[in-house]
Amino acid sequence: MAGIRKATIRDVAARAGVALGTVSRVLNEHPSVTPQARRSVQDAIAALGYQRDAVAGSLRNARTRMVACAIRDFDIPAFASYVKAAEEVFRRAGYTLLLASTSNEKDVELALLRGFAQRRVEGVMMTMSDEADAELAAAIAGAPMPIVLIDRELLQNVDRVMADHQAGAGLAVGHLISLGHARIGMIVGDPAAYPSRSRIAGYRHAHARRGIAVDEALIRDHALSNEIAFRETCALLAAADRPTALFVAAVDMLPGTLRAIRSSGLEVGRDIAIVAGSDSDLAELGVPPVSALSWDRAEMGRHAAEMLLERIRDPQPRAPRCVRLPVSLIVRGASAATGG
Amino acid sequence: MAGIRKATIRDVAARAGVALGTVSRVLNEHPSVTPQARRSVQDAIAALGYQRDAVAGSLRNARTRMVACAIRDFDIPAFASYVKAAEEVFRRAGYTLLLASTSNEKDVELALLRGFAQRRVEGVMMTMSDEADAELAAAIAGAPMPIVLIDRELLQNVDRVMADHQAGAGLAVGHLISLGHARIGMIVGDPAAYPSRSRIAGYRHAHARRGIAVDEALIRDHALSNEIAFRETCALLAAADRPTALFVAAVDMLPGTLRAIRSSGLEVGRDIAIVAGSDSDLAELGVPPVSALSWDRAEMGRHAAEMLLERIRDPQPRAPRCVRLPVSLIVRGASAATGG
Repeated sequence: MAGIRKATIRDVAARAGVALGTVSRVLNEHPSVTPQARRSVQDAIAALGYQRDAVAGSLRNARTRMVACAIRDFDIPAFASYVKAAEEVFRRAGYTLLLASTSNEKDVELALLRGFAQRRVEGVMMTMSDEADAELAAAIAGAPMPIVLIDRELLQNVDRVMADHQAGAGLAVGHLISLGHARIGMIVGDPAAYPSRSRIAGYRHAHARRGIAVDEALIRDHALSNEIAFRETCALLAAADRPTALFVAAVDMLPGTLRAIRSSGLEVGRDIAIVAGSDSDLAELGVPPVSALSWDRAEMGRHAAEMLLERIRDPQPRAPRCVRLPVSLIVRGASAATGG
Repeated sequence: MAGIRKATIRDVAARAGVALGTVSRVLNEHPSVTPQARRSVQDAIAALGYQRDAVAGSLRNARTRMVACAIRDFDIPAFASYVKAAEEVFRRAGYTLLLASTSNEKDVELALLRGFAQRRVEGVMMTMSDEADAELAAAIAGAPMPIVLIDRELLQNVDRVMADHQAGAGLAVGHLISLGHARIGMIVGDPAAYPSRSRIAGYRHAHARRGIAVDEALIRDHALSNEIAFRETCALLAAADRPTALFVAAVDMLPGTLRAIRSSGLEVGRDIAIVAGSDSDLAELGVPPVSALSWDRAEMGRHAAEMLLERIRDPQPRAPRCVRLPVSLIVRGASAATGG
C-alpha cells in the first residue's frame, strides 16, 4: 500500500526511452507496438514497480472486477446469509462484492443503479421496493450491466432467483388450521413486493381450501421493522376476538412479535401458537422453540452469483432465467397450542 | 437509467459548435474558456441530457463520493447496527457507503485497501485482523485516503472508535463472582484484536481484585463462529470440574453456547449462569432472559462516520483522535443461578 502511486506513466516512458503514447499502447495491448518497445516498457514497469491506476485503466478496458448487491437494510440477518454465500462465489472468480442498502426506497434504488453504472460495476444483485413501478422497471431493463433480481418475479426480462413463498405460507397456515385454529393473525411485509404478496396469497389459499372465511382484520401488512411488528401484534392481541395463532410471515420480525406477546402477559405455546415466516436462532433456541419456514438462503445467494457471472462472461442476449427454491416447514413446540 | 449514456461528449461538442477540448475544459472548470463557449456547452449539455461518465470525471476531480466499510463478516447482526448508523450520516452528507467483508484475513484486508485506493474511495472504516502486523499497519498508515479504525487501539497514527471492553468484561465477571461463582468459563474471540484482548484483561483483573486464581483452561479463545462457540462450550461443560457460569464474551456467539447447553441437558439459570458479551434479541427474549453487556453501537457508527467526513473535508494532517465508548451490564434472569 505504502508508495503504491509513486511511479507514474511518465517515469516509465523516461526509463524505457519511449514516448508516453507508446507506454499507453503497451498497457492497452495495442497491436501497433514493436516487440522491442514492448520489452523496454515492460522492463521499465518491472524495475519501477509501476502500478497502473485502476480508474484510468478501467476507462479503456471497462473491467473493474466489482459487483454490487443492493439490499433493503444492512441489519436483517436473513439477508446476510445469502450475501455471504454469493460473496464466496464472486471471490473465487476474482470479483469483489460491495454491498449497499436501499432503505426500500425507489429513489435510492435509482441512484444506486446510476452510480453502479457510472463506476462500471460489472453486475448487480438487487431487490426492488415496488415491482409495479415503471421507472424502476425501465432502469433495471435498461441498465448497462447484467442484473439478477432477488425474490422478485414481475420483471420477466431479467434473471430472477426467488423462494416459493406462496407454498411456504400454505404449509404454515395449513399446519395451524390442522391444529384447530380458525383465527390466524398474519404479520406480513409490503404487498408491493413478491415475498409478501405471495405469502398473503398462500394464506388465503390455505383458508379457501378448508372452507374457512378470511377475516381481513387479521392480515397486518407493511411490517418492515420490529417496531411495526410489535405494534401490529399488540393490536391483534388487544382485540375482543383475538387470534389463537400468529403467522409472523415477514422476515426477521419474530423479535417484535415475541416482545408484544410478552408485554400482553400471554405465554407462547400455551396461550397462543406461532409460526415464523423465516427461521432464526431466536426461533430455534426459544423456549418453547418456534416453528418456522425455511429455505436454503445460501443456495439462493450462490445461484444468483453464478447467474450473474455467466452474464458477465457472456453478454450475448439470451432468454432470462428464473430459479424458484422450495420452502419447507420446521415444526417445533410453539405451534402446539391448539385452537379454540 | 434508461439511456443514461446516450449523449456523448462528441454530441455535446457538435451541438455547441465547439471543439471536444473545449467541452472537456468546461467540464473541468478550466479558466481558459470564453463565457460564450461555456454558455453554449452548458446549453448543449442541458438540451441533450448529457451525463458525464463518473469514472472519466473522477480521473481529474478525484471525487467519487464513495466511502467504504470493511467488516469481518456480513452475517454478524451486531456489526450491521453500527454500519447502518454510519450509513445514515454518510447519506445525509451525499456519500454512498459500500460494505465489503474481510473474512478476518490479512490478505483480503490488503487487497481491499488497494482496491479502494485505486477506485478513489474517499474514506474507509475498518477493523484489522491482526493489530500487531507490520504490513497491515504500513498499508493503513500509508493509505491515500483517511481511515477510521473500529474497535482497534494499537495503531495510534489513525482515528479510532472503540468500546471499553475491558471495563465491560470486569462488570460481567464481577457480577458473576458476586453471585458466588468461582469457576467462570469464558468464550472469547481472537486476542490478536483489541476487543478479545481487552475482555481477557478485564476477566483476569476481576479475578485478581477478588483474590481468585484464574484457571487458564476456562479461557476459550478464537471463538469466531457459532460452530466454534458450540464446540468450546461443550468442552467446558464436559470437564469433571465444569464451570458454574459462562461469560460468552465473543460478539454474537450466544446461539452456539445455548445450543451446547441444550445438548448437554443443562438448564440455563438453574444449572448454569450466563452473561453474554453483547446484547441481542436472543439474549433479551430468551427464557430466562440472558444478562448482557451493552454499548451504543449506533453511536459508534455515527462517531466513526463523522470523524471520517471531517478528515475527507479537511485533509490537513492533525493529531489522530480516539473515542472510547462506555459499556454497561444489563442484568437479567439467566445470570441468577448461584455458584457452588
